[in-house]
Amino acid sequence: MPEPNPAHPTPGAPDAPSIALPAGAALPPGLVLRRPTPDDHGPVTAVIADWWGLPPTTHLPLLLPRLFFQHFADTSFLGEDDAGLAAFLIGFHSSSRPEVAYIHFVGVRPDLRTSGLARTLYGAFFDEARAAGCTRVEAITGPGNRRSQAFHRAMGFELTGDTEIDGVRAWRDYDGPGEHRVAFTRTI
Amino acid sequence: MPEPNPAHPTPGAPDAPSIALPAGAALPPGLVLRRPTPDDHGPVTAVIADWWGLPPTTHLPLLLPRLFFQHFADTSFLGEDDAGLAAFLIGFHSSSRPEVAYIHFVGVRPDLRTSGLARTLYGAFFDEARAAGCTRVEAITGPGNRRSQAFHRAMGFELTGDTEIDGVRAWRDYDGPGEHRVAFTRTI
Repeated sequence: MPEPNPAHPTPGAPDAPSIALPAGAALPPGLVLRRPTPDDHGPVTAVIADWWGLPPTTHLPLLLPRLFFQHFADTSFLGEDDAGLAAFLIGFHSSSRPEVAYIHFVGVRPDLRTSGLARTLYGAFFDEARAAGCTRVEAITGPGNRRSQAFHRAMGFELTGDTEIDGVRAWRDYDGPGEHRVAFTRTI
Repeated sequence: MPEPNPAHPTPGAPDAPSIALPAGAALPPGLVLRRPTPDDHGPVTAVIADWWGLPPTTHLPLLLPRLFFQHFADTSFLGEDDAGLAAFLIGFHSSSRPEVAYIHFVGVRPDLRTSGLARTLYGAFFDEARAAGCTRVEAITGPGNRRSQAFHRAMGFELTGDTEIDGVRAWRDYDGPGEHRVAFTRTI
């Protein structure tokens, strides 16, 4: 899909800094990391339901609108290998809370789940956030996403909530009526 | 609703700069502008369908998640008067395209529609974006939102799209399958 603003054919990509891996980290063989562009919005949102093991719903892509690929490319990563899209991490540095970096969406192709790739992506995001002056990383997930909760716990995040929903601490109606969320927070 | 991170009880609010009105602009009598806080997320998302004249849907709040109130408070405005919530503009300055400021969501209470309030909010956002080094403002709407299209045209925005949908130029599947959008762009 062509870009809506012809004056900016590849916004975000050209000036983005190169991506450094965390000390000691390695990528799965053949996998290359780069910054996302708006053209990646369709392919990424198309795999979310499948990778997350969710039923496809019409509102799922609305959680990750094109604006993230247009405006937060320089703090996000996308991985590709011979099989195509392999992983992505979409995050940004908070404007009104400069000490905070926020991870909005992360996905790893199911066949790469045991590769340590998510940990490497998080590590690279932590390093860049630290270099930009952030001291804390935050993220959220749904109460039912036990895999995400276990991963964030293993990555040193504290899980917060104001009530118990489906057996886990979560914030009721965090993102609207019925949209409960578990919040993750971690110093870096 | 209490904040999910107890270490940051009122993120975004304390250090936000004061809001200057554009030259010659005035607010409706009794209306006060301030920066939004995460506590405004519920009240704002609760009025969207009503103010926009849309049927309430479960996915509408997902277009404006809490993260905008947590992380972009310093580039956003909220207006209140004796009747309560009067208007809001939620926007941010692009990270990967530093020349661009993006207006994500705007609402004006229907009884204030002829007051020039939306124009004043846009003018204040333009002024702050210009002061931060931005040279362009962008926004989007749905093909069916003729009021938004007329307003942005009157505010000097160019409307772009790659096809015609419901009689207007729009970008097909811009935010996902069936999620067509008209894009607005304007130099400042």
